[in-house]
Amino acid sequence: MSKGLEDVVAATSSITYIDGIKGRLLYRGYDIADLVENSSYEETAYLIWNARLPTERELSDFTKGLVSKRLIPSGVDSVLNSLPTNCDAMDALKIAVAVLGIFDDPMYSTQEKAASIASKMGTMSATIHRHKHNTQPLKPKDGLNFSSNLLYMITGKEPDELMAKVMDVVLILHADHELNASTFAARVVASTLSDIYSSITAAVGALKGPLHGGANEKVVDMTEEIGSPDRAERYVLDKLSRKEKIMGFGHRVYKTDDPRAKILKDYARKLISTDKDRKDFEILTKLQEVMIKEKQLHANVDLFSGFVLNHIGVPTYLFTPIFAVGRSMGWLAHIMEQYSNNRIMRPVAEYSGPQQELYVPVERRSAGVR
Amino acid sequence: MSKGLEDVVAATSSITYIDGIKGRLLYRGYDIADLVENSSYEETAYLIWNARLPTERELSDFTKGLVSKRLIPSGVDSVLNSLPTNCDAMDALKIAVAVLGIFDDPMYSTQEKAASIASKMGTMSATIHRHKHNTQPLKPKDGLNFSSNLLYMITGKEPDELMAKVMDVVLILHADHELNASTFAARVVASTLSDIYSSITAAVGALKGPLHGGANEKVVDMTEEIGSPDRAERYVLDKLSRKEKIMGFGHRVYKTDDPRAKILKDYARKLISTDKDRKDFEILTKLQEVMIKEKQLHANVDLFSGFVLNHIGVPTYLFTPIFAVGRSMGWLAHIMEQYSNNRIMRPVAEYSGPQQELYVPVERRSAGVR
Repeated sequence: MSKGLEDVVAATSSITYIDGIKGRLLYRGYDIADLVENSSYEETAYLIWNARLPTERELSDFTKGLVSKRLIPSGVDSVLNSLPTNCDAMDALKIAVAVLGIFDDPMYSTQEKAASIASKMGTMSATIHRHKHNTQPLKPKDGLNFSSNLLYMITGKEPDELMAKVMDVVLILHADHELNASTFAARVVASTLSDIYSSITAAVGALKGPLHGGANEKVVDMTEEIGSPDRAERYVLDKLSRKEKIMGFGHRVYKTDDPRAKILKDYARKLISTDKDRKDFEILTKLQEVMIKEKQLHANVDLFSGFVLNHIGVPTYLFTPIFAVGRSMGWLAHIMEQYSNNRIMRPVAEYSGPQQELYVPVERRSAGVR
Repeated sequence: MSKGLEDVVAATSSITYIDGIKGRLLYRGYDIADLVENSSYEETAYLIWNARLPTERELSDFTKGLVSKRLIPSGVDSVLNSLPTNCDAMDALKIAVAVLGIFDDPMYSTQEKAASIASKMGTMSATIHRHKHNTQPLKPKDGLNFSSNLLYMITGKEPDELMAKVMDVVLILHADHELNASTFAARVVASTLSDIYSSITAAVGALKGPLHGGANEKVVDMTEEIGSPDRAERYVLDKLSRKEKIMGFGHRVYKTDDPRAKILKDYARKLISTDKDRKDFEILTKLQEVMIKEKQLHANVDLFSGFVLNHIGVPTYLFTPIFAVGRSMGWLAHIMEQYSNNRIMRPVAEYSGPQQELYVPVERRSAGVR
């Protein structure tokens, strides 16, 4: 038995190719480095769902479709409003998606449902943030692209060009990663031919787990704790001697640098403006050096993503919801792929329990009887 | 690649043993036939979660714990109340579990959370039913056992002994079935160390799928459509000649009679009281004969479960929620087992997409370019 299904082939997929040896990540054949440089959230979503890049006309129609679906139904908003302000943001997002399944337009095609969910994932995340602070949620602004509008709905300010670009980059880099646990959960649910909202609800619930989403939050905490680049090496050595895990390093699939880490590091560098920024950036760079030297472990996507998200105005507790906004592109593509060539996911277990036991009536059982 | 993960070992488990050749099903080593005859919902839940039968004192304490957790928080009730009355009962149940994750007692231990969820699954299903009919949900009655109380909250009447026993039997028979799709979805979510409510939410979403829950509803429709035992054979032959599926037959695991079908058939026979009942029962029996003869396919758990559920006062659209109430015992056991020996579920995909593609700017793309 391969614990955690490591190396077990669970599906055929044409969405994402990961070369863990060379450190490459392709969506539908396109290198993420090219997409980050040239593409946008909107175009990447089209690519991932349609397996090809759009023409100008297709991209324009597709973008209009996304924009027209940004506003969340009042039924979803009022459920979000009824949750306590201190509730976990991922719990709130999971509930929002589940409730959206009731109130979304029932006449939508599967592709329209995908556009609706992806579009509303942003609005719902921003709404959760605004409720948490008892501030009025902001209506989406039609004139802004997906990433600018997302930052606007969170912060209340239209972002500058670099900030909007960085948000686009973060969303593109998180769009898909083959059969990670949340995507796999979505496919297992879809394999029963349950609906797309139920599948996404499961994925959000899986991403909530600390072994999946959440590592970049821990990296931010760790950076604060370390405080200064000259303390980074000591910190790592102490942790490692206590056999503790350093977040932001290592990946089951990559045996070299995670290509997403490299790109995010470049953008992190561009966002440095204060001494504190420079110090934090140097701490992260120092961690990279020490982890390679000590453990031959490479940086993963989580090492620099918290830094860049904080710098574009995303509060730490919203990191995982923003991860979900990006990853929903992939979840939706995988659900559609599962539907198109489906068989219910029904593996087996290796039985390790007792052989047949004799039932003894309760009055004749002593404590601890099996 | 084994499509649908057929025969792939995805976990080690000591909960349930299925002998698909001999047609036996054991929970923690105890044959379901023994449990149905001698045990109860409460005792079976204890057995499945604790891997042994309780002493009298343990069973009494455990039962008190379940009873004390029946009432759902008002936050859950008000979200359920805000959903349209025509909404899908499984969607409502999925939302209720997700919202319960916010409002349930945060001080509960994992075992107490399990007791709370299992206990409230019944109350939530009954509440959904009452909301659907714009009738006031009924408060649980402390003096009644789990199954009697469940039927009371649904129908408004305390059931007689046979009806309560049949509900107990249905819940016990549905309690677990190894790595079926919903249980597997729960374990995938739990493997990220996400919380128990997120895992159960995923499981409910998976059970909603027509390839998983829902087959017994279709059997009831089919029985109505056939109308008379002498039309059953013709009906099956027509369906088979059109290569359509007959619900209630065949199972990926059992190569012989599903032992649950045999037990439910015995209880179905006991519930016959009118001519219509006798006719319906004969239709189902005739279907069994014809399906063995024509396709060598055996009855599964769904063939007689709709018949018995309808006869104890459960409306057809509540069949899958009741399935969920029973199966939640197994879901919870599997989640706890996953937590106790965890590794994140991260399989791989066999890539079938394009090799590296060159990014072409949008203005230079013609329609259909890859």
